Amino acid sequence: MAIALLTDFGTRDYFVAAMKGVILSINPRAVVVDITHEVPPQDVWTGAFILASAYKWFPRGTIFVAVVDPGVGTERAPLLLRTRRYFFVGPDNGVLSLAAEEDGVEEAYRIEARLPQLSATFHGRDVFAPAAAYLSLGVEPRMLGIPVATWVRLGRPSAEVAGGEMRARTIYVDRFGNVYTSARGEVFQIASWGDVLCIEVGGRVIEAKFVETYGRARPGETVALINSEGYLEVAVVMGNAAAAHGLKAGLDLKIRRCS
Amino acid sequence: MAIALLTDFGTRDYFVAAMKGVILSINPRAVVVDITHEVPPQDVWTGAFILASAYKWFPRGTIFVAVVDPGVGTERAPLLLRTRRYFFVGPDNGVLSLAAEEDGVEEAYRIEARLPQLSATFHGRDVFAPAAAYLSLGVEPRMLGIPVATWVRLGRPSAEVAGGEMRARTIYVDRFGNVYTSARGEVFQIASWGDVLCIEVGGRVIEAKFVETYGRARPGETVALINSEGYLEVAVVMGNAAAAHGLKAGLDLKIRRCS
Amino acid sequence: MAIALLTDFGTRDYFVAAMKGVILSINPRAVVVDITHEVPPQDVWTGAFILASAYKWFPRGTIFVAVVDPGVGTERAPLLLRTRRYFFVGPDNGVLSLAAEEDGVEEAYRIEARLPQLSATFHGRDVFAPAAAYLSLGVEPRMLGIPVATWVRLGRPSAEVAGGEMRARTIYVDRFGNVYTSARGEVFQIASWGDVLCIEVGGRVIEAKFVETYGRARPGETVALINSEGYLEVAVVMGNAAAAHGLKAGLDLKIRRCS
Repeated sequence: MAIALLTDFGTRDYFVAAMKGVILSINPRAVVVDITHEVPPQDVWTGAFILASAYKWFPRGTIFVAVVDPGVGTERAPLLLRTRRYFFVGPDNGVLSLAAEEDGVEEAYRIEARLPQLSATFHGRDVFAPAAAYLSLGVEPRMLGIPVATWVRLGRPSAEVAGGEMRARTIYVDRFGNVYTSARGEVFQIASWGDVLCIEVGGRVIEAKFVETYGRARPGETVALINSEGYLEVAVVMGNAAAAHGLKAGLDLKIRRCS
Repeated sequence: MAIALLTDFGTRDYFVAAMKGVILSINPRAVVVDITHEVPPQDVWTGAFILASAYKWFPRGTIFVAVVDPGVGTERAPLLLRTRRYFFVGPDNGVLSLAAEEDGVEEAYRIEARLPQLSATFHGRDVFAPAAAYLSLGVEPRMLGIPVATWVRLGRPSAEVAGGEMRARTIYVDRFGNVYTSARGEVFQIASWGDVLCIEVGGRVIEAKFVETYGRARPGETVALINSEGYLEVAVVMGNAAAAHGLKAGLDLKIRRCS
Repeated sequence: MAIALLTDFGTRDYFVAAMKGVILSINPRAVVVDITHEVPPQDVWTGAFILASAYKWFPRGTIFVAVVDPGVGTERAPLLLRTRRYFFVGPDNGVLSLAAEEDGVEEAYRIEARLPQLSATFHGRDVFAPAAAYLSLGVEPRMLGIPVATWVRLGRPSAEVAGGEMRARTIYVDRFGNVYTSARGEVFQIASWGDVLCIEVGGRVIEAKFVETYGRARPGETVALINSEGYLEVAVVMGNAAAAHGLKAGLDLKIRRCS
């Protein structure tokens, strides 16, 4: 059974290795897959977004462990969610919520199981890794924790259209400098393929051709397209839109078809 | 069966994880190995060079997936090459060519298989990962695509010797700042172990002792040696030659024995 | 059987992939786990420290390969240590020593086995990877090398208490900017939970509340705690202590309870 890991631990320390060691010590046959360990430190939203973009491609039964945990050592609960097709394990701060709720939560538990030598600062190793490893052996969730009725939920990205204008925000910037907005299919209420979008952000206006694919524009041109995750994305063909236009996550946008 | 991945996707987004999820959804027993995901964005040459340096150490039958794909969304074909010992899958832009042609191409296909929900921008997940996963299950290449007679080839690194001078170029800089040149055994036509090489680059001359191993020079000394891949390499013992001498890939060199 | 890798090779070149290819060519069933490849180039101490922090969480029988090797190409020996529960393979420069000696060395060998085409500069691929792979198949260490009686040992981190003052040093800074000191339980000779520690470093004094867990302090507050590895650590809650206080590894500290 696959166990997929997402953390903000980076890959230069021993943290991820310790988690993998614990997993293999409990289940030597576990198949451990890294989603990423480069979530910006303590950025719960970005962790949740990446998890939600990745989880659905994994086989039924995959166990996801997501540890972005600014509250380690406080009273936030360790959470286990059984969804329609998967298991999710991590701190109860919302990092699991975008993915788990999209798949459909069927059972929720506060994890009580832990390694004998629990440390105050490394629940990834001492709580979440063992819980995932036991799940991968077929242990029932109710043997690992006690049922809970609620958990922390993050708001899903959304956009609003009124009077020919769409209000959205930037939610993610990927390695290539492509800028994801919170808008999805709503964009078709204000524009069609081939239109030029006027994107107002911080008092400036960026013009972006609304295209089906990069191939419909020239290198260096700014485009807007529906990306592989279904979000309206601002990109520069063969370039870096975030750098070219000074964009980052968390900015408010007003988008309309240029006159 | 091992599936080895090389991309320019980086490791901080969900891209590589989505590919691995697709692979495991098709073949849960696949052994997925990362070659690297840190190819400079859209740098086809560097991707091809790293693949050519890594592939030959893998077991017979390994399936290599290389996705460095500035042309995603255009008409470039998805390519599958069966070579003497391996399979190679990726865009038809040359990224597979150095490795595949060294091993000996026996069959070539344009990949037609893809996931039902093909996106315009993420062929790594929607085309290349599933093709590799099906190959790992033993599916014949002709079930995945249609035969093609030609594909894009990159020129192999080379050097020329005339009148006691060798013309070469820098082709790669590794993490340690070692600078690979396009020269291989040709260097023995102009020098012997222990000679000092005068390397002319951009109007400057770098002196480098031609040695069999780092151990034959002092820390801080600039040396030239035949590296583990068989290329003439400029290095600084216990140091960083690229930083010390302002070198990068793509520079023309004239190399001769210093008088 | 798991083979766990730690190197300073980075992940952007072909080095780690070549090692994994060699391992899988010898033992296709080997489970290869990355500890880290981001050890600062040629920093033997940091490599040894990370290995010592990670190894103990892995299953009995795990084979650790650690390659941080400023002396490659010189006369330093390739070393194989069989300890109470594990195998360790790497250059004889101390990188294995913190972990192996903590577990208890039972046998030591100079590795003689190597790939047919030994290169002068890449023993990770040509010597250490094959040795680890053969061990994972059950090959006895004495088939791979000749017994040796001594090997290079690094000094373990330590601290001294006298007259109410503890002398220690900074030994490691992790991704989050948490600063590990060489002190462990000795700190209880000079302070109790809730005391404020005065940490003198380079003529300055940093005040840090000595707490059991991050949850006992406010965001932005500087604290000292016993971390998951048992070391006294200086941290800023929800922040970066190394950046906030200009700390790095290798600094001398005088620590006392503030009056």
